[in-house]
Amino acid sequence: MPFRDECGVFGICHQAEASRQTYLGLYALQHRGQEAAGICSGDGQGLHLHKAQGYVADVFTEAALDALPGDAAIGHTRYSTTGGNVASAAHPFLIHGRFGQVSLCHNGNLTNTEVLRAKLIADGHTFTSPSDSEVLLALINRAQADTLEDAVVSALRQAEGAFSLLILTEDALIAARDPHGFRPLAMGHAGDTTAFSSETCAFDLVGMTYDRDVEPGEMVVVPRGQGQIRSRFPLPRVQAKPCVFEHIYFARPDSLVYGRSVMVARREMGRLLALRHPVEADLVVPVPDSGVSAALGYSEQSGIPFDFGIIRNHYVGRTFIEPKQNIRSFGVKVKLNPVRHLLAGKRVVLVDDSIVRGTTSKKIVQMVREAGAKEVHMRIACPPTTHSCFYGIDTPKRQHLIASYMSLKEITGFVEADTLGYLDLKDLETCMGDDGAEAGSGFCYACFTGNYPVAPHD
Amino acid sequence: MPFRDECGVFGICHQAEASRQTYLGLYALQHRGQEAAGICSGDGQGLHLHKAQGYVADVFTEAALDALPGDAAIGHTRYSTTGGNVASAAHPFLIHGRFGQVSLCHNGNLTNTEVLRAKLIADGHTFTSPSDSEVLLALINRAQADTLEDAVVSALRQAEGAFSLLILTEDALIAARDPHGFRPLAMGHAGDTTAFSSETCAFDLVGMTYDRDVEPGEMVVVPRGQGQIRSRFPLPRVQAKPCVFEHIYFARPDSLVYGRSVMVARREMGRLLALRHPVEADLVVPVPDSGVSAALGYSEQSGIPFDFGIIRNHYVGRTFIEPKQNIRSFGVKVKLNPVRHLLAGKRVVLVDDSIVRGTTSKKIVQMVREAGAKEVHMRIACPPTTHSCFYGIDTPKRQHLIASYMSLKEITGFVEADTLGYLDLKDLETCMGDDGAEAGSGFCYACFTGNYPVAPHD
Amino acid sequence: MPFRDECGVFGICHQAEASRQTYLGLYALQHRGQEAAGICSGDGQGLHLHKAQGYVADVFTEAALDALPGDAAIGHTRYSTTGGNVASAAHPFLIHGRFGQVSLCHNGNLTNTEVLRAKLIADGHTFTSPSDSEVLLALINRAQADTLEDAVVSALRQAEGAFSLLILTEDALIAARDPHGFRPLAMGHAGDTTAFSSETCAFDLVGMTYDRDVEPGEMVVVPRGQGQIRSRFPLPRVQAKPCVFEHIYFARPDSLVYGRSVMVARREMGRLLALRHPVEADLVVPVPDSGVSAALGYSEQSGIPFDFGIIRNHYVGRTFIEPKQNIRSFGVKVKLNPVRHLLAGKRVVLVDDSIVRGTTSKKIVQMVREAGAKEVHMRIACPPTTHSCFYGIDTPKRQHLIASYMSLKEITGFVEADTLGYLDLKDLETCMGDDGAEAGSGFCYACFTGNYPVAPHD
Amino acid sequence: MPFRDECGVFGICHQAEASRQTYLGLYALQHRGQEAAGICSGDGQGLHLHKAQGYVADVFTEAALDALPGDAAIGHTRYSTTGGNVASAAHPFLIHGRFGQVSLCHNGNLTNTEVLRAKLIADGHTFTSPSDSEVLLALINRAQADTLEDAVVSALRQAEGAFSLLILTEDALIAARDPHGFRPLAMGHAGDTTAFSSETCAFDLVGMTYDRDVEPGEMVVVPRGQGQIRSRFPLPRVQAKPCVFEHIYFARPDSLVYGRSVMVARREMGRLLALRHPVEADLVVPVPDSGVSAALGYSEQSGIPFDFGIIRNHYVGRTFIEPKQNIRSFGVKVKLNPVRHLLAGKRVVLVDDSIVRGTTSKKIVQMVREAGAKEVHMRIACPPTTHSCFYGIDTPKRQHLIASYMSLKEITGFVEADTLGYLDLKDLETCMGDDGAEAGSGFCYACFTGNYPVAPHD
Repeated sequence: MPFRDECGVFGICHQAEASRQTYLGLYALQHRGQEAAGICSGDGQGLHLHKAQGYVADVFTEAALDALPGDAAIGHTRYSTTGGNVASAAHPFLIHGRFGQVSLCHNGNLTNTEVLRAKLIADGHTFTSPSDSEVLLALINRAQADTLEDAVVSALRQAEGAFSLLILTEDALIAARDPHGFRPLAMGHAGDTTAFSSETCAFDLVGMTYDRDVEPGEMVVVPRGQGQIRSRFPLPRVQAKPCVFEHIYFARPDSLVYGRSVMVARREMGRLLALRHPVEADLVVPVPDSGVSAALGYSEQSGIPFDFGIIRNHYVGRTFIEPKQNIRSFGVKVKLNPVRHLLAGKRVVLVDDSIVRGTTSKKIVQMVREAGAKEVHMRIACPPTTHSCFYGIDTPKRQHLIASYMSLKEITGFVEADTLGYLDLKDLETCMGDDGAEAGSGFCYACFTGNYPVAPHD
Repeated sequence: MPFRDECGVFGICHQAEASRQTYLGLYALQHRGQEAAGICSGDGQGLHLHKAQGYVADVFTEAALDALPGDAAIGHTRYSTTGGNVASAAHPFLIHGRFGQVSLCHNGNLTNTEVLRAKLIADGHTFTSPSDSEVLLALINRAQADTLEDAVVSALRQAEGAFSLLILTEDALIAARDPHGFRPLAMGHAGDTTAFSSETCAFDLVGMTYDRDVEPGEMVVVPRGQGQIRSRFPLPRVQAKPCVFEHIYFARPDSLVYGRSVMVARREMGRLLALRHPVEADLVVPVPDSGVSAALGYSEQSGIPFDFGIIRNHYVGRTFIEPKQNIRSFGVKVKLNPVRHLLAGKRVVLVDDSIVRGTTSKKIVQMVREAGAKEVHMRIACPPTTHSCFYGIDTPKRQHLIASYMSLKEITGFVEADTLGYLDLKDLETCMGDDGAEAGSGFCYACFTGNYPVAPHD
Repeated sequence: MPFRDECGVFGICHQAEASRQTYLGLYALQHRGQEAAGICSGDGQGLHLHKAQGYVADVFTEAALDALPGDAAIGHTRYSTTGGNVASAAHPFLIHGRFGQVSLCHNGNLTNTEVLRAKLIADGHTFTSPSDSEVLLALINRAQADTLEDAVVSALRQAEGAFSLLILTEDALIAARDPHGFRPLAMGHAGDTTAFSSETCAFDLVGMTYDRDVEPGEMVVVPRGQGQIRSRFPLPRVQAKPCVFEHIYFARPDSLVYGRSVMVARREMGRLLALRHPVEADLVVPVPDSGVSAALGYSEQSGIPFDFGIIRNHYVGRTFIEPKQNIRSFGVKVKLNPVRHLLAGKRVVLVDDSIVRGTTSKKIVQMVREAGAKEVHMRIACPPTTHSCFYGIDTPKRQHLIASYMSLKEITGFVEADTLGYLDLKDLETCMGDDGAEAGSGFCYACFTGNYPVAPHD
Repeated sequence: MPFRDECGVFGICHQAEASRQTYLGLYALQHRGQEAAGICSGDGQGLHLHKAQGYVADVFTEAALDALPGDAAIGHTRYSTTGGNVASAAHPFLIHGRFGQVSLCHNGNLTNTEVLRAKLIADGHTFTSPSDSEVLLALINRAQADTLEDAVVSALRQAEGAFSLLILTEDALIAARDPHGFRPLAMGHAGDTTAFSSETCAFDLVGMTYDRDVEPGEMVVVPRGQGQIRSRFPLPRVQAKPCVFEHIYFARPDSLVYGRSVMVARREMGRLLALRHPVEADLVVPVPDSGVSAALGYSEQSGIPFDFGIIRNHYVGRTFIEPKQNIRSFGVKVKLNPVRHLLAGKRVVLVDDSIVRGTTSKKIVQMVREAGAKEVHMRIACPPTTHSCFYGIDTPKRQHLIASYMSLKEITGFVEADTLGYLDLKDLETCMGDDGAEAGSGFCYACFTGNYPVAPHD
């Protein structure tokens, strides 16, 4: 139950039902953002946009999809960020400019947005929202370049930080990923149709085959008419640093991310966790849903039986009317309910994916104890989270990350666990097949190490 | 039942409940546009925007108004135009640019939008909608000027056509009107509060006093903090040409427009119509609501009794489910119902404000005859409408205006009236107190004469 | 601006689009109730019901009407009453009972509801709402009768008070009116189609011809299959006492009510008012919309010019967000706006249909004075309202009716008019063509006289 | 993925926030029905009802809950059944009758509804819906009994079939369960507050302690004022036959049902399934979510590793826009996605709770094969479902139950599994601790055996 990701993207070209397939793709990516959704489609008449706050299933009606004709589309599902005019921050963004209509949506976060924006404003540009997508569109539009494609390259060269983006124009669907490849972006096909998605689970739903990732620093251009798909690497080559947290928490377990099975990685994390932090116990219990795979791995390695000692209510929606009176642990219990008959009298290994502020972990430990657990041994399937993310994940400021100001012992006391064990960074690297040596390998572990691949300007 | 206006604007400064008063102002201006509504307010923290499709009463909830804090606000109510992404065309528009946040809404239509837009796009600017409001904001932002105020002047000097606009910035509320003053813009106060409105009926509702109009070519700056209200006339002086159709049809009869009572002007139109086009008849019947005042004038002058021989159903909303089977004259009858007992056997003078395509007039005449009228003498309280408007009124193309291709006799036959009389242009001038001679007087009569004060570029 | 009526009913049989025509009928009757609407239709499969709170146009969508198939339907539009489960009080009511499915809606109010209800409850019956419609349905179902038709007769014989009702069964559409005929119920046709409506304006919209009223005490049975329309008079013959207030205020002016033109009656009321209560004045001004016809009559008789010195905003809906700060006369001004230029310096005759509590009248007089009127002479187109209604009109309790506890002079002072004149009862009778003598003539004037044709039990 | 249950009930007494706690209770019971929800509360002024179609979180707003005051409430969440006026079928039902206001909601299905209803109609009663709840209320109201309590007893004695019901009156909250106890009904407390719920997971959320079940044939009366809770057994004693399917599929795994842990029972089913139907395989994969516990048991017993080879998208809501073109296995894939990297090349044991028509099982097997599984061995955690349910579960007619017309071998072929194994009835009894011998023990296994404890009349 950690950080919140900022979005999922899906795009498709040469598909008669482009907007409907994009709708389905976003449906499969709904876990990446529940605040807003949008689709921009293109036909011979231009681009068509529909976006609004809400779940994908609520934002799009039959009528809304019918108003998004054409054989190419891009879409976005978005997590809430604080403040501002929320409605105006939904993606995709669509501009009318010197390249005609251009639409863009992205997953990630530029680290030099404010610098770029200030410069663009000084040059006379205006913005309708604080979104860095608008900054990218402005850079494209004002690039000293004759073609849209070169203009995109120019813009991407100025952008720093994390971006996995999709651009739809009157002529092409373009996908691009920042040089470090912080955020995922997969590419697939079915017949002549080409698609891009934050995760492969969206391909599974629409019956497409995953081919490969858009590579860090790569720009893939899919012409909307005739013509070959073109790949370019116009950005400086640096060591790739894809976000490891996608594997720890964000991605759906049935997805391949960076070409690896999320579920397999998580199970391996649990297994190594059991090796490093064994404990005598009766039951391995995951915090659902994100701790499940690691808990299975822990159970397998340790031989301690696994069971769902905590059940999640999947009907909990975005809105909920709180009782006026105080109900003990209500905030946690509305989502999670301990199974007393499994837990009573047991020594429990409680497996979660991560600890952020520590307050939720504390409540869950309390809840498990109230349900009768004799001992609660907390195991976390990643290293202590000590630093904020600047590459597209909505983390608290550093001073609110419990591991940034408390020792392991203090955290153990705070969350009221009998013992607490985190996965070692070394082990995490092992799980990710990362030997930390050769060029091209490696992941971004900045939230554990503070070693930021790109220094944040803003 | 003629053309449709494109909007109403209301703005206010130095008012603790600025957004609520703007809401009320828009409520009173609802007749000027039912498609969308929006308010932008400003407090010490910046500008806050809420806009959506629908009636004012539907767009704004208590919560929406609470999210629009501050002591200054501008608002807009909008008529639908065809095509495009309707949602993105609602006013006000809000940009972040070199002058910080700037919001703008306007009533009117620039006649050189396409020229300006093409130039701005060539210079690297981008737009999110086809609205000319965005063009104005771009001109402001890119003006070679050090202050927002000078930038506005620069922008207005480039704009041609019709605009009565309100601008809200972090420092001021600015009102401006094009040099011809095509569209109305009134100014009022209550204590220290200053307000602007398309019509004075909005001042009546919020308890403000009408002081004067923003004059053609004038720019009024109301500083949001301390400081005097400043008036400038930065635009070239030309003969004022306010739209006479506001008095004929658009404005609410209880409003003062251009400082004149709409109701008084309409009654006078009816009176002169009776003088020029007398007829022996039993009853003067208005097409409600727009023909009522003229019909009263006709009755007074002619001595023929006045009565509501047609009743309007005021509960007719924007949506209506049509019967599948054919009901005679259904389209007209859903709004208007003839009163058989008044009309049966009578020679009726039917007074309407104008004839556009002629098809509705034909149906109304038929309806009145079916209700038993022996004779139907149609009297129109303006001259034949022969030309399209380019200054903010949604008129059909010239070739669809019946008076542009039919003679009086032919129109009489088409609408199946026994006789038909239009108000003479000369008489209309008289009603408006316009002697057609001195500078500074005069109105825009282009829809009757084709004499366009500003040549349309687009 | 007086009492509020409780509903409008419309029913139709032998019409392929029965529910759509009923929708249209209710649309035309919307002024009789804006709180809730409902339609029950019948086809070979049984009866189908849809009802909900809201305007007719909001309650019914295309899908809702498509789910109401069949060639017979009844519908209802309802005014709010205080308290209780509002949703459950919408009409029509539909029961499954010994005569199969039976649906009923009505306009009016039984005066012995509580007695009947108590008896039925004692006999083991249950109710889902406080509605007297349910009582009628229970009486029908429990009648000692072999046929539904006889059961209805039995029920009606037990019911006291006011009812104009429509019943839809699997076999017939039945219309009935209480012996006094308190509330209106018109009957019309088009080809083989038969329809019933509270007012004839609904017939006008759907293209039907008004034939006659369902007579007081009459029951009309329209068989849904083959068979003649049957008329019965199963109820005791008493002197008819239709509600005169329909003509004074409720009905649309374009309707015939009790076979008489509402507009003609109102104009006559104004004329006689001018004869009895003349005054030297400059302008006759109606309180719109209900005072318009009477004001025209007053003007005609007195020779004093008529004009719309007060304009009504027809966009005022059911909900309205009030300003937090005090705006003078806000509650009245949101609907009504005085036209300063017409009123300033004038001696005004202000014509309204009635005075209930006096508080609104006082505010309107104040508003007219603030707009500059030199004198305000109030003229009321009916006698002083001194008694509550028990026959279907939502009136305040007697002690809140200003005319029940104040003299004419006191009321004049309270509403701050210079003079005040009410229409005499005698003159009202004259307007209604009621010589007060022969049997069969006469109206219910109980709200002016306290002579209740049926004593209220409850 | 089998039958659908028809509802969940929750009631509470002596709780200041009765309606809010009921809302929370229904929230926890949302899995038992997503079609409609309702709450009836009681305070000194009477009973208050709100019910509508939709999820609990959508049906109830703060305002709706504020309009449900009082310290006692009952609530219901309902599954859709086909046909009829859906809106009118939402629970609770509220009547005004000889015992004042009485509200009722229930889980279950009377098997003699039509008989009772026909009799009641013959006696003059009427109904507003086809619901058997209305029949129960009518029986109560018409009972020859002086007290509400005796009337309830009288009604229950006439009712046959399955009912776990809650009644709220002006004086008491009453819970009752049919003599066989087909459907669950638990009882709990917190301080002076007493509550009833279909499942104990609702008690967990509101912080109450589960005490015991309302016993088969028991009626528990909680006086709303002072007074002891009273228990009566007014119904004939028969052998209890609680529905075993609650443990197989319906109930949340964290609930106690009939005092037993659902999760423990399911795990045991999986374990015995492994004993009876072993197979050489590489992976045990549940059909989520209902097959998870049994799959864990199967894995534990067999030693074959468990993993989530199929992932469920929990964001799938009630509405979903289908693609127009054909996507292979789309209907299943929108909810369930196979994890290719886990399944590829594996011999898979696929564990589901039951097979109804067989069509969904077939699609899941296909999907798992397409994901690369080498062998698919289906294991079902209950016996073959050969008979329909008449006690409150929405099952297809017998002829659509695949096990009613196909042999094991044929079903294996139909679903395209390599092998197929069902749990033996004997083993199911063992899991439920049912020795099938002593009186008072036993469960309803009719859907597997056709031995109906109560013969259906209707």
